[in-house]
Amino acid sequence: TIVGSYHNSSKLKLKRGSPREEFPCLDGNYTCMAQVLDLHMYTRQFNRATESGVIFDDIIRPGLEDPGPLAVGCLAGDAQSYILFCTFFDRVIEAYHSYKVVPHVIQQSDLNYDNLKGGDDFDHIYAVSCEVSVVRCVEDYCFPTHISRGERRELLTVAKEALAQLSEEFPGKLYSMDELNEEMKDKGIIMDAPPPSLMKIGVSRDWPDARALWVSEDGTLAIWINMEDHVRLVSSRNDANVQEAFAAVCVNLVKLEALYKKLRRPFVWKPHLGWVVSSPAELGTGMKASITVRLPHLAAHSRLRGLLSRLRLRMEATDVYKLSNVESIGLTEVELTQQVVDGVKLLVRIEKRLEQDDCFDDLLPAQK
Amino acid sequence: TIVGSYHNSSKLKLKRGSPREEFPCLDGNYTCMAQVLDLHMYTRQFNRATESGVIFDDIIRPGLEDPGPLAVGCLAGDAQSYILFCTFFDRVIEAYHSYKVVPHVIQQSDLNYDNLKGGDDFDHIYAVSCEVSVVRCVEDYCFPTHISRGERRELLTVAKEALAQLSEEFPGKLYSMDELNEEMKDKGIIMDAPPPSLMKIGVSRDWPDARALWVSEDGTLAIWINMEDHVRLVSSRNDANVQEAFAAVCVNLVKLEALYKKLRRPFVWKPHLGWVVSSPAELGTGMKASITVRLPHLAAHSRLRGLLSRLRLRMEATDVYKLSNVESIGLTEVELTQQVVDGVKLLVRIEKRLEQDDCFDDLLPAQK
Repeated sequence: TIVGSYHNSSKLKLKRGSPREEFPCLDGNYTCMAQVLDLHMYTRQFNRATESGVIFDDIIRPGLEDPGPLAVGCLAGDAQSYILFCTFFDRVIEAYHSYKVVPHVIQQSDLNYDNLKGGDDFDHIYAVSCEVSVVRCVEDYCFPTHISRGERRELLTVAKEALAQLSEEFPGKLYSMDELNEEMKDKGIIMDAPPPSLMKIGVSRDWPDARALWVSEDGTLAIWINMEDHVRLVSSRNDANVQEAFAAVCVNLVKLEALYKKLRRPFVWKPHLGWVVSSPAELGTGMKASITVRLPHLAAHSRLRGLLSRLRLRMEATDVYKLSNVESIGLTEVELTQQVVDGVKLLVRIEKRLEQDDCFDDLLPAQK
Repeated sequence: TIVGSYHNSSKLKLKRGSPREEFPCLDGNYTCMAQVLDLHMYTRQFNRATESGVIFDDIIRPGLEDPGPLAVGCLAGDAQSYILFCTFFDRVIEAYHSYKVVPHVIQQSDLNYDNLKGGDDFDHIYAVSCEVSVVRCVEDYCFPTHISRGERRELLTVAKEALAQLSEEFPGKLYSMDELNEEMKDKGIIMDAPPPSLMKIGVSRDWPDARALWVSEDGTLAIWINMEDHVRLVSSRNDANVQEAFAAVCVNLVKLEALYKKLRRPFVWKPHLGWVVSSPAELGTGMKASITVRLPHLAAHSRLRGLLSRLRLRMEATDVYKLSNVESIGLTEVELTQQVVDGVKLLVRIEKRLEQDDCFDDLLPAQK
């Protein structure tokens, strides 16, 4: 195996100028990385490298290539990145999640889906679909921007074993990208090229080598291997029953975690950071819950922005609207999903008022 | 300046498995790299790194991301790459250019455009436009896949000085990408994103930082800075007067070479390789001459493929056809351009025969 096998390091050095000469141009870059990064910070991080060879320039690369307005603008190359470059990452996490990392505060997990209230009782005229996803990374393996082909293949081997065992209780099948394309041909879905978003940030290197998708027979759960993170569980539904989607993810995540542990490949967890994954935007719980909703009146309303900010929800515009949690750290999985459930319910109530041209001041939430 | 300033190398090592575990999947990869690469070759190169930190995996990366059928499938990260990884590169060069690199054979240059015969006398019913381009890299700077922001900015500073001096004799203006977009807005040309082909192979990192375009006042010459190579001269014409295009490139290339040398930033040249540039497909002369031609009959003819192979020309299909030299090493600039000029003339003669349904066996060329 690869753990402990290193490149002959005596030869590898990089040719670069001084931090001042190398400092990136951040004009028009609205990522959290760009908010946090100045020459002083850059200089401080410049000559550091993790044990796997991740340098600071590797970490900010994604944000330089794809400076989207809502992005964090950086990715960890391995788990050690968060520790070695903590003065940078802690501030990025604070800027993105409005959560201050404190060394002695232990992150709490709550995967008990019974604790979630509601989520199966949306007005389905408004709430049309939902998705809950959780990402995890495996200890001692580089993260997708920095991983080697050999490491990726080892992770696929581990995933095959774990998923074969999961399938005994919860039937499902693992597909390579080639098998997936063959299977999906009739449905017009082809994954012969990686998503452009992954390509830009170097996560799709060697595509489709060692990428795989496990799908449960009942269609309620999908598990991606070696995409944005080592492991990603997704439950998507064509109704807005978030309770079911959340339960499907939680139940299998707990099983998968145990299976990986048994194979001596535990997921990375650190007390003060929670579940450690490649994006600081998903650190902590690794969780994203989203509900797609019809809100024609509210969408055009001047108070929408303020409302979303108070509810800590992000809204992506399609013809319908997709609402999801903004943060992933500082709250438990149940709390995050609860936020989405409650927030969407409130938004639907407001939308109904707007249909009748009614005032909704009495419904305005307090800041979450 | 950056030359001689290195990353603190004591820390930087890469986490990888054995060559066998890391060997790339080359299924469906038809590049020259994939033809040449086997586990034995990979193992031999695996632990080597140039003084600037280029490893073999960096070099084959472009061919793994973009395994186009006509591509070489690899790029040098610096000039030393060609020396350190010569057992690999020499075979790639041979596969692509049908030219065997021999240590004691010195590459010849011929930029005397008077030596080119014809090229201004095409039948313009057939030959509609042409382009001649030459690339160069500067000594002691990493090549575009591996260059740092600081190095790129230094090269722009050098280019500014050299081009200011060139402009004294041959008026022209240097534009940054922002200025270029402003200038070109009315013409509907926008370069706000790098070409996707560059993005895939990591050449457009930090775009548009330190990229620039110099354009001569008379419009006959363009010089790109920090694109596929450090410097690229292009002369494009809306007629097929290759002689003029070739002359425009040669005259200014000679001047530019002298100006860079005076600034103590000479272009990289090695006796047995000629002009050293990032792509082994352009090594030697760095030159590509192309003519776009209307050949409706010949294009559909069964003998076209054999003809092109004998003439050592590549043909790209559009509604018209663009013919250019295949190789760039082993022949001089004049000889390469002559090959294109003579080849296209022959193809036009054959096309005319085909219009009359005449046989053209007597026109078939010998293998060049």
